[in-house]
Amino acid sequence: MKCEIISVGTELLLGQIANTDAQYISQQLAPLGIDVYFHTAVGDNSDRLKECLEIAWRRSDAIITTGGLGPTLDDLTKETIADFLGLKMVKYQQAYDHLKQYFKGREITQNNYRQVYFPENSILLPNNNGTALGCIVEKDNKVIIILPGPPNELIPMFQESVIPYLRSKSDYVIKSKVLRLFGIGESKVEEMLKDIIVNQSNPTIAPLAKEGEVTLRITAKGKDQVIIDRMIKDMEDRVRSVVGEWIYGVDDDSLESVVGRLLMEKGITISLAESCTGGLMSHKLTNIPGISSVFKLGAVVYSNEAKEDILGVNPTTIKEKGAVSRETAIQMAEGARLTGKTDLGLAVTGIAGPGGGTSSKPVGLVYIALSDGKNIVCNEYHFNSNRQKNKNLTSMHALDMIRRYLID
Amino acid sequence: MKCEIISVGTELLLGQIANTDAQYISQQLAPLGIDVYFHTAVGDNSDRLKECLEIAWRRSDAIITTGGLGPTLDDLTKETIADFLGLKMVKYQQAYDHLKQYFKGREITQNNYRQVYFPENSILLPNNNGTALGCIVEKDNKVIIILPGPPNELIPMFQESVIPYLRSKSDYVIKSKVLRLFGIGESKVEEMLKDIIVNQSNPTIAPLAKEGEVTLRITAKGKDQVIIDRMIKDMEDRVRSVVGEWIYGVDDDSLESVVGRLLMEKGITISLAESCTGGLMSHKLTNIPGISSVFKLGAVVYSNEAKEDILGVNPTTIKEKGAVSRETAIQMAEGARLTGKTDLGLAVTGIAGPGGGTSSKPVGLVYIALSDGKNIVCNEYHFNSNRQKNKNLTSMHALDMIRRYLID
Repeated sequence: MKCEIISVGTELLLGQIANTDAQYISQQLAPLGIDVYFHTAVGDNSDRLKECLEIAWRRSDAIITTGGLGPTLDDLTKETIADFLGLKMVKYQQAYDHLKQYFKGREITQNNYRQVYFPENSILLPNNNGTALGCIVEKDNKVIIILPGPPNELIPMFQESVIPYLRSKSDYVIKSKVLRLFGIGESKVEEMLKDIIVNQSNPTIAPLAKEGEVTLRITAKGKDQVIIDRMIKDMEDRVRSVVGEWIYGVDDDSLESVVGRLLMEKGITISLAESCTGGLMSHKLTNIPGISSVFKLGAVVYSNEAKEDILGVNPTTIKEKGAVSRETAIQMAEGARLTGKTDLGLAVTGIAGPGGGTSSKPVGLVYIALSDGKNIVCNEYHFNSNRQKNKNLTSMHALDMIRRYLID
Repeated sequence: MKCEIISVGTELLLGQIANTDAQYISQQLAPLGIDVYFHTAVGDNSDRLKECLEIAWRRSDAIITTGGLGPTLDDLTKETIADFLGLKMVKYQQAYDHLKQYFKGREITQNNYRQVYFPENSILLPNNNGTALGCIVEKDNKVIIILPGPPNELIPMFQESVIPYLRSKSDYVIKSKVLRLFGIGESKVEEMLKDIIVNQSNPTIAPLAKEGEVTLRITAKGKDQVIIDRMIKDMEDRVRSVVGEWIYGVDDDSLESVVGRLLMEKGITISLAESCTGGLMSHKLTNIPGISSVFKLGAVVYSNEAKEDILGVNPTTIKEKGAVSRETAIQMAEGARLTGKTDLGLAVTGIAGPGGGTSSKPVGLVYIALSDGKNIVCNEYHFNSNRQKNKNLTSMHALDMIRRYLID
């Protein structure tokens, strides 16, 4: 099935927002085995939208539109599509009830009632997060799927209604699983998995590099759910036997969610001492709901005095070895553990840049230390990026260090 | 001038990346007075790209393409455009020299030499951040501007070469200035500026809401740079006379960059005590280069013990009033100031959610306190969002509280 996406909204053409709807939909369609050949963005203009519909209708089997379903006069997607297909706009009781329910007795302004009209013979798509229902219009063995623009409305509607609809049109089931790797580069992963990648057919395996991490997407296609699950499992086992050492999670995991989960499962408490990451590690960990049961203290110790006063770092160490040194990192980690009264203490100290570097201690030099009261490990890193990326890479390596300790 | 943007790359159609190039270019074209009516994304496929070129050439004066300038076989933008326009591909010495210079003696693989060929009569666009030069091809009073896809190559090229080219094609100069407001909603801003907005022509003024803040873009168009600057200044003065109280910065400012600048200018030092923001405030402030001269300590005190041990909060206060209370916030702020040995201490404590709320202290309840050793102020807030947005809104309000103190 060939599909294209038409996003409607002048805000896209002014660059006020990026077309993340098209990205999201494309991500969802690929594992369904649906090819996307074009994205188009067009403004809130009926003539130009119609021009886009004509072009798309000619060359594709399915069109998915986003945006232009609101109550105001510049929202004209449904009306333009009805006009293009020669269909009448019809009032739908289901949409009317939804509107009443949504406003729960509050005043409904007149223009909202435009949202209860759809092209005749539409399949309506529920919206639990807004007033605008979506709809599906089928004609001449082709289909137009009309969705709202705001991602918080579009994404649930896509998951709950569009994917089941598209699946029902296909004989095939397609499933994906993402493996997440940290601490290894994309080209190294490709090299190690060369035999698998070169000979892949079904399941397929696709590597992708993002900042600091590599993902491997395994996608299997078939007619039987059980067989597909087994195919994915077999491929995952093969991949893990080669690069399992670097796989930290799957699907929507992040390093912080994995670390947070491990800490909470094991009931191990932790404190952080951050210098060059400046609070980013604490910020990441505290994005995980429930983390307060195990995360007790994050000390962002930018000054030497704070390192000494709060973490008990020896002033002589800082004087002789420097604030960015293996010795200071180790004392910071142990200090964080003791001050926070936790099982673990982790510390990072480094030079995030752009200033502060010297020839012996250049920008990007980072020490990360982890103490559990019995043992302390400290690793040295050299990052080569700007301030914000250096902060992020440092925080990822530190989280991975905690993760490896916890699974050991 | 009517312009459209064609982005080339299968990674866009797979949803691996969002089309931020089109967003960026659109943002840049609007203030140049160039209308953008369509964005298209197409894969690395010569036939389909040619189809897009035909459609765009028919309906627009200018086409800007992004992507497909790399050395590999699936990079075919230049070749396809040359073919479409009936132009030969020609070797350019300037591009050859650039390649040699870029590789600085390292081995140049054979496929890299494809990057020294361009459609005949091209204007080449330098690239200081990659091997692929861009180019401009003019024909029949129309123009195609061919740019690389990676934003770190495209953006400097656009600023350094494309904007001057487009300006040279226009009789007009267009300039913009963005005013940034915090602590007031978009609809309130529009209401207060109604007279100006309704009667606007040149300069125009456009409000836009982003998370927690509102921007006002003033755009003036004319033939004389001096007159345009004065027009913008006059409009800015009018706007400031109405909503100046909420304007915290201009153009690329952020709350943290403004706060950081004020602290550094005045040599005022600060420490933070964060509970519900979990390190986000420290992270934001430490994104500002040079901040270590004034930011000394960020204490992410998630546990009550940490609040007591590090900040000296009275255990009785926490027991009687709760960790999320005005009294605790005030003691945390003063404790941060004393422990960090700084001029100011700022503290936030609240319930970020999703768990932890009660009927008397619901999710989203936040106290922010600021102490300078003589006076302590503490404000109460009620945010109504998810964990991450509550963290962000809290950090923005706290930064604005510091800002207002510093300009007082």
